[in-house]
Amino acid sequence: MGEFELIRTYFAAAPCAQGGEGIALGIGDDCALLAVPPGEQLAISTDTLVAGVHFADPCDPFLLGQRSLAVAVSDLAAMGAYPLAFTLALTTPTVAADWLQRYAQGLNAMAQRCGVGLVGGDTTRGPLSLTVTVFGRVPAGLALTRSGAQPGDLLCVGGDLGNAAGALPLVLGQRSAAAQIAEPLLGHYWSPQPQLALGMALRGKATSALDISDGLLADCGHIAKASAVSLVIERQRLPLSAALLAFLGDEQARSAALSGGDDYVLAFTLPPTELGPLLAEGWPVHVVGRVEAGAGGRLLDAGGHDITPAVRGYQHFRETP
Amino acid sequence: MGEFELIRTYFAAAPCAQGGEGIALGIGDDCALLAVPPGEQLAISTDTLVAGVHFADPCDPFLLGQRSLAVAVSDLAAMGAYPLAFTLALTTPTVAADWLQRYAQGLNAMAQRCGVGLVGGDTTRGPLSLTVTVFGRVPAGLALTRSGAQPGDLLCVGGDLGNAAGALPLVLGQRSAAAQIAEPLLGHYWSPQPQLALGMALRGKATSALDISDGLLADCGHIAKASAVSLVIERQRLPLSAALLAFLGDEQARSAALSGGDDYVLAFTLPPTELGPLLAEGWPVHVVGRVEAGAGGRLLDAGGHDITPAVRGYQHFRETP
Repeated sequence: MGEFELIRTYFAAAPCAQGGEGIALGIGDDCALLAVPPGEQLAISTDTLVAGVHFADPCDPFLLGQRSLAVAVSDLAAMGAYPLAFTLALTTPTVAADWLQRYAQGLNAMAQRCGVGLVGGDTTRGPLSLTVTVFGRVPAGLALTRSGAQPGDLLCVGGDLGNAAGALPLVLGQRSAAAQIAEPLLGHYWSPQPQLALGMALRGKATSALDISDGLLADCGHIAKASAVSLVIERQRLPLSAALLAFLGDEQARSAALSGGDDYVLAFTLPPTELGPLLAEGWPVHVVGRVEAGAGGRLLDAGGHDITPAVRGYQHFRETP
Repeated sequence: MGEFELIRTYFAAAPCAQGGEGIALGIGDDCALLAVPPGEQLAISTDTLVAGVHFADPCDPFLLGQRSLAVAVSDLAAMGAYPLAFTLALTTPTVAADWLQRYAQGLNAMAQRCGVGLVGGDTTRGPLSLTVTVFGRVPAGLALTRSGAQPGDLLCVGGDLGNAAGALPLVLGQRSAAAQIAEPLLGHYWSPQPQLALGMALRGKATSALDISDGLLADCGHIAKASAVSLVIERQRLPLSAALLAFLGDEQARSAALSGGDDYVLAFTLPPTELGPLLAEGWPVHVVGRVEAGAGGRLLDAGGHDITPAVRGYQHFRETP
């Protein structure tokens, strides 16, 4: 089966693969064509997942399909972009119908949930890896970047942290847990929900934003560097799920929330005056610290003491000049 | 070295990696931002090259850098799109500074030649492969697709065919040739020149177009299927380079031109009235056949006899209903 037949059979079943909003031409020609309304810009991000590096192989292809799209779409959320479309470059050692079908089902399920249509891709033979490129649109000048944080801003996150890091020993089969603990943690790992609506709600309000993929400490380092400020994180204010607390205990749960990756929750800074209205509208905004003049970052314990060096991950955080 | 540092160090040296025309935000944030003028659409294409499948490993990383971008940009040419930008997802087993530097130099050289800027990407550890996604813009309604060929149209190509297929035994070290033969053939293979200007000149004139990557016969099959017509190719009219003729002889050279892949020359159909003006303007347009009502395609010899079944590749060609 040729690459075109393969990609069409398994992936073009997505409901919006042809003719979705903003998709002028979908799969099957040399290029796809996207329409961008006047005054808007196109947001683009690319993510690669490699078997044995970013996910265990073998794994459930349905879950992998969901996750491979979600982690890419999360970058659109981090820019405040409205989701449009994606391409998939799939490299696979064999054309295994069952695997491809399940993978495509997971991908399509996440595509529907996120409102993106598959517009093209490439299917090649080789060691298993997946590159997803996502496209969204955002009004010119309103994209959320990493570079606008100001001293005096609050540092906030969009939800519980550390769940995906907590799930990792379950994913790798190193530990087990009761269903009421394992299910929510594994759900966060395999099926992260890109915070698209929150990202769009933060347009014109947040001064900087990103999605947490490397862990809160490391990712706050990216904001600090791009904005040329210092970020202060209060360890006691990190939002933690009941499942994570029950699984790891308070101390380890906080470490997972600080240094674990793969949360795909938004982290952002905003002037204090913006906080109240967002909370009143019901957005999940948790204050975890603040922006100061300076560089790099500091981690404070419940008593306000600087405990930065004692935390795993601080080095990456501190490294940023 | 983290992925950001790696990608920045070696790839961000491209002159238009930041702030090129149409690039509102380049490398370094969650997404890149592209500006698309009102009335234009964004053209997108993705190509993956896998070591050992699409190129020999080891190979000259400079040449690989050139080629990996050129084959992707060629899809923009095939749509008549104006080139803007690209992303690179690079998976590599080791962070080898020399290799990356040479690869980036080749990539940047081709990026300059094609007028595209690197706007983002991902760098991951794993078996060597490269996924390039390219972006261009084209006035709404003027993109060249595969689906508009009409009976009575001429079938044309934009230059000599078969050179890359002829080069393959040289690339693989299976044969050698005198420099005056090897150099032009290897040049076509490693450094194909996307026909961007020709593609744009064909807007509003060609009724269908694509770039030849699978070989003329197979790719004409794609046009025939998408346009629901039959394509007739006259074997004697295929344009061949002096180097290919000297290397393979007339018979084998014509076979390479029909069934060899990787030419990245445009194939297109146009009404006969459009031919003269294009030739008068100096565009490289070679008539190789015509469009008829029907399905699939036919290959004719110098005497006008149907020789379709006798040619390698016919099956793929015929397969298209």
